[in-house]
Amino acid sequence: MATLCFHSPSKPISYFHPKSKPSPPLLSKASVLRCKASVQTLVSVEPEPVFTSVETFAPATVANLGPGFDFLGCAVDGLGDHVTLRVDPSVRAGEVLISEITGTTTKLSTNPLRNCAGIAAIATMKMLGIRSVGLSLDLHKGLPLGSGLGSSAASAAAAAVAVNEIFGRKLVREELVLAGLESEAKVSGYHADNIAPAIMGGFVLIRNYEPLDLKPLRFPEDKELFFVLVSPEFEAPTKKMRAALPTEIPMVHHVWNSSQAAALVAAVLEGDAVMLGKALSSDKVVEPTRAPLIPGMEAVKKAALEAGAFGCTISGAGPTAVAVIDAAEKGEEIGERMVEAFMRVGNLKSVACVKKLDKVGARLVSSVFS
Amino acid sequence: MATLCFHSPSKPISYFHPKSKPSPPLLSKASVLRCKASVQTLVSVEPEPVFTSVETFAPATVANLGPGFDFLGCAVDGLGDHVTLRVDPSVRAGEVLISEITGTTTKLSTNPLRNCAGIAAIATMKMLGIRSVGLSLDLHKGLPLGSGLGSSAASAAAAAVAVNEIFGRKLVREELVLAGLESEAKVSGYHADNIAPAIMGGFVLIRNYEPLDLKPLRFPEDKELFFVLVSPEFEAPTKKMRAALPTEIPMVHHVWNSSQAAALVAAVLEGDAVMLGKALSSDKVVEPTRAPLIPGMEAVKKAALEAGAFGCTISGAGPTAVAVIDAAEKGEEIGERMVEAFMRVGNLKSVACVKKLDKVGARLVSSVFS
Repeated sequence: MATLCFHSPSKPISYFHPKSKPSPPLLSKASVLRCKASVQTLVSVEPEPVFTSVETFAPATVANLGPGFDFLGCAVDGLGDHVTLRVDPSVRAGEVLISEITGTTTKLSTNPLRNCAGIAAIATMKMLGIRSVGLSLDLHKGLPLGSGLGSSAASAAAAAVAVNEIFGRKLVREELVLAGLESEAKVSGYHADNIAPAIMGGFVLIRNYEPLDLKPLRFPEDKELFFVLVSPEFEAPTKKMRAALPTEIPMVHHVWNSSQAAALVAAVLEGDAVMLGKALSSDKVVEPTRAPLIPGMEAVKKAALEAGAFGCTISGAGPTAVAVIDAAEKGEEIGERMVEAFMRVGNLKSVACVKKLDKVGARLVSSVFS
Repeated sequence: MATLCFHSPSKPISYFHPKSKPSPPLLSKASVLRCKASVQTLVSVEPEPVFTSVETFAPATVANLGPGFDFLGCAVDGLGDHVTLRVDPSVRAGEVLISEITGTTTKLSTNPLRNCAGIAAIATMKMLGIRSVGLSLDLHKGLPLGSGLGSSAASAAAAAVAVNEIFGRKLVREELVLAGLESEAKVSGYHADNIAPAIMGGFVLIRNYEPLDLKPLRFPEDKELFFVLVSPEFEAPTKKMRAALPTEIPMVHHVWNSSQAAALVAAVLEGDAVMLGKALSSDKVVEPTRAPLIPGMEAVKKAALEAGAFGCTISGAGPTAVAVIDAAEKGEEIGERMVEAFMRVGNLKSVACVKKLDKVGARLVSSVFS
């Protein structure tokens, strides 16, 4: 097992290379210095593109999941961002041009150093040691910004996977998470609980950042899990929601929340949607401080539970509310009740959708050969 | 599902009756009042003894397990207490006489109201509604007191199971945990993290106390897990160790410990002894405050890890140190190194033993028919 060290803008991390892949040769110190990158190059020979263009998709993600604050997240199918990436001789070698941004938002910068997809693409190119090829990237946003559904992570994940695919998939998913983390660190903070599930799919537990240590939690293949996602027209910036958090918490709440996080993991691995919902719904540390900042959230949760949801909490830093259920039809009804509650109590318009757990993660949608 | 309410000396709890057993009829309020018990009678017709005597065994338990503080525990095979229980016409009907206490300690009271086994036996008799038969009980202690190995829980578990067995096993294990909790509450505090695994075996997650909600975590049948238990000659009373705990903890430690508790549960369910050890070894909340109170503990942990243990922490409230490994032979060597460290740094004599995870829990050893 090789131990590779990366340097992120926020803090240094090292990374245990996953066992499943032979360890790539470590580069000499000189080449690392020459690279001047915040991530290290992981392949010894610069790969050539195997496609002229690829299209990728990366799913929305629900981070925190109640007592899983800052270390647990999962991917949600059928909602996310697309990236189209092309080998572009008009772009300077080793660089990325963002040619178009479409979809739910046009507010994003096309400067690749200030765009989630751009930052992740560049980081992935650095990890692959790409110096001879330039790329152009189209980003199609399926997710709104600041919704608590991992919008920035979806863009970063789609871009990282696109770069990896166009050059013949030399990096494993855990490595792509590091590229995505570069982007997350610059945009929304050094947190892997969106980017890891966006890339890897399913539930992912962040065991450690130093070194980054990710534990995928496999929800049983033969079972389904549905999320009711209700997004109100309300801005809940991550920074403001973070500022609401306590810096110290009572021991009794720590014990409670830890036990619920433990139960949440057991529920995921055993495919027990009822237990999962109950655990997700039981946060006494973060949700109580954030829910009052989202008008109607407490009533929305109550409405979801009364309508039969197994559990409900804030998705990420909000303002989206997420409820859990085991069947799509029940989810539709729960969603209607949650939308009503957002309007009735919070005086907020909202939209609901019911989505399955995404067990795949960011993926290649189509590719064009040279 | 019936919801039954019990009243413990410390706090009221209610209890969801497990689905696996038909709900017993609820008694009328009058009968509950007549009973004047802190636990409720759960069977409608007083059962008759099916044996004249039984012998039971209940295992030692390791509570806390690092980041599982106050909600996680597991049972350890081949180390524990025995109870012999007899139908005794010379004992007043509905009562228990403790006739003999042998083994590692003779300090215990033979007053059944002040003895762990006695309290649990009486609570179990109350739950069964025993009013016509008197019992005499011998307790053979295999566990020392105050070692951090669930000594009181083992006595209580063996007694509760013995009473249940002698009357034809009318109560399920979760109900016996309630009887055991009566005893724990009086002796060492209202905590189920020893009594639940002592009765149920394996790892048990305490999801809630109000109502009591236990989640057994099944370690894979085809895998083994070994504990190296090193007990020094040192008194670490639970109360003193509890007093050392912080009442408030930093958010960052809360997030860390929660993620490690989550990883611990994943490791148990997947039978990953390495991940389990790492998680168990990673407590930043409780162990750092307690370890300095046990001379040499930090050095003992270091010695265990250097000798190849996957992880090491304090068992329960100590002073026993517990290390985790996947093979008995390696465990012997680790134990020797830990004993050396206790002497070298803490100037404490200690004894080591290597024991497997107990997947069974408190059990009937032998029975004699009328």
